[in-house]
Amino acid sequence: MAGKIYGIGVGPGDPELMTLKGLKLLKAADVIAIPAADKESCTAYRIARGAAPEIEDKEILCVDFPMIKDPEALKASHERAALALAEILDTGRTVAFLTLGDPTVYSTYFYVHKKLSARGYEAEIVNGTPSFCAVAARLSASLGEGAGAVHILPGSYPIEEGLALTGTKVLMKSGRQLGSVKALLMARGERALMVENCGLDKERVYVGAENFPEQASYYSLILVEDGKNKDD
Amino acid sequence: MAGKIYGIGVGPGDPELMTLKGLKLLKAADVIAIPAADKESCTAYRIARGAAPEIEDKEILCVDFPMIKDPEALKASHERAALALAEILDTGRTVAFLTLGDPTVYSTYFYVHKKLSARGYEAEIVNGTPSFCAVAARLSASLGEGAGAVHILPGSYPIEEGLALTGTKVLMKSGRQLGSVKALLMARGERALMVENCGLDKERVYVGAENFPEQASYYSLILVEDGKNKDD
Repeated sequence: MAGKIYGIGVGPGDPELMTLKGLKLLKAADVIAIPAADKESCTAYRIARGAAPEIEDKEILCVDFPMIKDPEALKASHERAALALAEILDTGRTVAFLTLGDPTVYSTYFYVHKKLSARGYEAEIVNGTPSFCAVAARLSASLGEGAGAVHILPGSYPIEEGLALTGTKVLMKSGRQLGSVKALLMARGERALMVENCGLDKERVYVGAENFPEQASYYSLILVEDGKNKDD
Repeated sequence: MAGKIYGIGVGPGDPELMTLKGLKLLKAADVIAIPAADKESCTAYRIARGAAPEIEDKEILCVDFPMIKDPEALKASHERAALALAEILDTGRTVAFLTLGDPTVYSTYFYVHKKLSARGYEAEIVNGTPSFCAVAARLSASLGEGAGAVHILPGSYPIEEGLALTGTKVLMKSGRQLGSVKALLMARGERALMVENCGLDKERVYVGAENFPEQASYYSLILVEDGKNKDD
């Protein structure tokens, strides 16, 4: 009988933000799959090891997804990953696939999840804390209150359109075009906060767009507060 | 010296989705505060007790927030809660305030967090898995992929405006007006899924708006899939 794969969200950075279920399945898994070329460069792996140092002794499968935008090349890399994972599952072993934050939010795991499920493999998503909740907690800010909406906008979303929405806005993956995002936030007079590397080494908090740097790490997240729906 | 308050997200329902940090702080707290009139009617408390049965022996503070919309009456109830909590903190005791899902997402804890912080009390938010991530995991669905945005829309958000947005839509607190939401989703031909009581007793999954009931529990969440940005 084929093994089962668990896509486990290890949370945003602090190993103590792993869930009890994630930790249990991680310890029980035969093979740990990581979305990186090697263990040491994998943030999700370092978080998991922080919670369960004994995983160092487990077999590791490195599933490296190239940072490319070409849809065909991306699909091919997902297919290669699914094949490599299926090969392990076919031997009856259990796989824990680690993913930063939560697996339902922009995770690479989800692509292989769909492919493996479609081929009849048992696959389960195990939640973790998503990065935007961790950033809000770090800032003692609320994402949503009362009647306010929350919009999670990847860097590629039309930023002017996004900022015009009513509610709290979370800008993800803005690190590389931060200069232009910063200028726009300032021009609009938005109340914005940013956390770089939340819960990781070199964490930095910036209050007010005018204090944002021109460039920041990939793990940067901007919170644009709702002008409305604020009570005292 | 005054005690510290932790707003702890116990996650969406399964006690095993509590975080290691949440569990540790829960066990160490002198007093457990719950957003309900009593322990037995409090879902967050039942989840926490599932992970740590020993909290039964701890002192409980019931902080009941009335389900009202009048802003002045709501403010007054938050103020009463903050005063009751401050009284305990002033005795040097530590408080764990339980909240369903994640404290940064529409939680009542956040109101007392702001009030207590403003008065100089040490207050920390401890993340948990938000309900919409749990629902997506339950449905083996992704909230956000690639360039797609995610819009978290409370029931009070203008629904037609919300559905017109590009990206995945999460409709929260739609239980009571489900009939009209269902009709609109069907008229628009949206691909929608719903989970009622995710991870709790009486969990139900509905695929396709045409299969939604006319009314559902308060703990119901609708996922409207993005028509775009879908690969294989």
